[in-house]
Amino acid sequence: MRDVAIIGVGITKFGELWDKSFRQLISEAGAKAIIDSNISGREIDALYVGSMSAGRFVGQEHVGALVADASGFSHMHIPSIRVESADASGGLAIRQGYLSVASGMNDIVVVGGVEKMTDVVGTEATDTMATALDQEWEAFFGATYPGLYAMIATKHMHDYGTTRRQLAQVAEKNHANGALNPFAQFRRAMPLDSIINSPMEAYPLGVLDCAPVSDGAVTVILCAADKAKKYTDKPVKIIGSGQASDTLSLHGRDKICTFESTVYAAKMAYKQANLKPEDINVAEVHDCFTIAEILAIEDLGFVKKGEGGKAIDKKITTLDGKLPVNPSGGLKAKGHPIGATGVAQIAEIVFQLRGEADQRQVKNAKIGLTHNVGGSGASSVVHILEAM
Amino acid sequence: MRDVAIIGVGITKFGELWDKSFRQLISEAGAKAIIDSNISGREIDALYVGSMSAGRFVGQEHVGALVADASGFSHMHIPSIRVESADASGGLAIRQGYLSVASGMNDIVVVGGVEKMTDVVGTEATDTMATALDQEWEAFFGATYPGLYAMIATKHMHDYGTTRRQLAQVAEKNHANGALNPFAQFRRAMPLDSIINSPMEAYPLGVLDCAPVSDGAVTVILCAADKAKKYTDKPVKIIGSGQASDTLSLHGRDKICTFESTVYAAKMAYKQANLKPEDINVAEVHDCFTIAEILAIEDLGFVKKGEGGKAIDKKITTLDGKLPVNPSGGLKAKGHPIGATGVAQIAEIVFQLRGEADQRQVKNAKIGLTHNVGGSGASSVVHILEAM
Repeated sequence: MRDVAIIGVGITKFGELWDKSFRQLISEAGAKAIIDSNISGREIDALYVGSMSAGRFVGQEHVGALVADASGFSHMHIPSIRVESADASGGLAIRQGYLSVASGMNDIVVVGGVEKMTDVVGTEATDTMATALDQEWEAFFGATYPGLYAMIATKHMHDYGTTRRQLAQVAEKNHANGALNPFAQFRRAMPLDSIINSPMEAYPLGVLDCAPVSDGAVTVILCAADKAKKYTDKPVKIIGSGQASDTLSLHGRDKICTFESTVYAAKMAYKQANLKPEDINVAEVHDCFTIAEILAIEDLGFVKKGEGGKAIDKKITTLDGKLPVNPSGGLKAKGHPIGATGVAQIAEIVFQLRGEADQRQVKNAKIGLTHNVGGSGASSVVHILEAM
Repeated sequence: MRDVAIIGVGITKFGELWDKSFRQLISEAGAKAIIDSNISGREIDALYVGSMSAGRFVGQEHVGALVADASGFSHMHIPSIRVESADASGGLAIRQGYLSVASGMNDIVVVGGVEKMTDVVGTEATDTMATALDQEWEAFFGATYPGLYAMIATKHMHDYGTTRRQLAQVAEKNHANGALNPFAQFRRAMPLDSIINSPMEAYPLGVLDCAPVSDGAVTVILCAADKAKKYTDKPVKIIGSGQASDTLSLHGRDKICTFESTVYAAKMAYKQANLKPEDINVAEVHDCFTIAEILAIEDLGFVKKGEGGKAIDKKITTLDGKLPVNPSGGLKAKGHPIGATGVAQIAEIVFQLRGEADQRQVKNAKIGLTHNVGGSGASSVVHILEAM
């Protein structure tokens, strides 16, 4: 396996983008990444794209072919591969693209992530999100995303003394960061009391503990590391990659306050990078709900199990803390166009390691981690990146 | 890139399987393949699964995690990757699994294909199929699968003199073959007149020119070729693999009677195998409509462009012809559970090369080819297999 570097990124603004189609979003992100990486289209060997449910959100499957076409590569007839792992679709696309370059099969690949979620009406967005859960054993009986994460939150509160206030502080921090991110869906700080008192979604999670429904696309260009300097002065190397699965249903697991898929995926990535959690300078983790960020920093080994809530209290994860988490604003404030999220996490770490994150720049960021979760933890993808 | 062999296959019966769930189908095919390959679950490094639109057909995305779970591997937390390329999803899953073993990343991977299409009502099956077309530029304006293939057929008739009778003969042949296949959805020969006079779908294609809506699952086990003999006396080697794309919309192309994606994918596979079309002994091609099989045998180089209809007249592609095509009955008679189809083609060629195809056995089958198309040709995947 050879080294792989990221040589370019492109990201659209996230939000309710009613004036832009699925096709336009992915084209815009793709064009920005091509410009950022100084490559020509002819040099591209393959495309990988992550999208969770374009079939339901916009009536479009065959997403790989669409992306090749919309990006102007149809005349080159190159392979284009769409992967799906619910919310972790973007991370999975990065991993599959990464492995294809690491193996020597491809030299340059384009990895995209895209979702357009706001064109549906009624309960369709919630229903489509629930297709990431176990349809037969959970969704059919009325379980929803917020409902399952609420169960995890109450259990975490019971077992470890995590408080409603600590949950809300996660959203407070991420909104503060998102306010500094030009690509974020919500660019305003949110007072803690507003979050605590936001309309209840599923106890103890209020509306402001939940990531929004979003449109957006992100593209990243991967290249064999030994050729990266030809294209950019600031390549970022992927030094660890891990993916793992778990039971699809939450009730199938021994523990619900630990996502074993995250633990295993992280172990794989740390081992490959030959690093420990304490070596990470900045992380983008999967905060689809506030409780999910607390779980993530525990399962990734940044703090001990049960101490995620206290870490928030101690401001360890704020922008000027010991380990800044979600400087982009996270899924909470940056937005969560599902298939785009995992690729957006990579893009943010690239901005951070290049020193291009402006007001939200983490100081001395040399090594960054991304963590992308599917559903209620049935799949996770973890990557570790280093400035070259 | 090292050699890769197929060491086991498992297939469910195809049909309207109202008494079996999506989960049950994939479990059944998986269990059969595990038994066939003599491996233990612990030896599996990763799962790949092709499914076009489980999100719409059965309300289930996160298909990779489901398959890992339903197959009993959730406790192993292994990576599971769902890929989608419309009807070519199964072929793409094979290719991605193949590449992961060829690259040395994995030693043993399980590749599944699954679709459960008959649980929907009204026009939902047709609408979901149309998500493989260009939603914005084709499906939105009322274009359907049969409609687009009918345009291709009339153009082929106009340009090359292909007849309604030749189209029907494709279905006649495939029904005759399907009658001999215990896994086929339609196990009866169909008189030529019944096909010609079947209710019109879109001129010149009648209902009996179209592949049916089906449920089914297939699993194939891939292994590094140098370890294959440990598990089976009859490994089958993958000696060529190709994938290519084209414009998503039919109207975006210079020519509509040639699928360039097939031409490019086949070129890639032939080059890797160092073979020519005339070296192939048996082929499973993508006959979603009768005209599609005619296109396929031309685009794969078995006959010259425009001579596909005449080849059917000359009975070149029958079970005892010079190059038997679709001995399984093809999509037409075996059935077309979309994501399963590309994997089923591989399974049939494995049965043929192992000499286990009973009444539908092709004589002296040493080298076989599979050809899987997405939508109206926006993606194609071609594989070439050889008995070891």
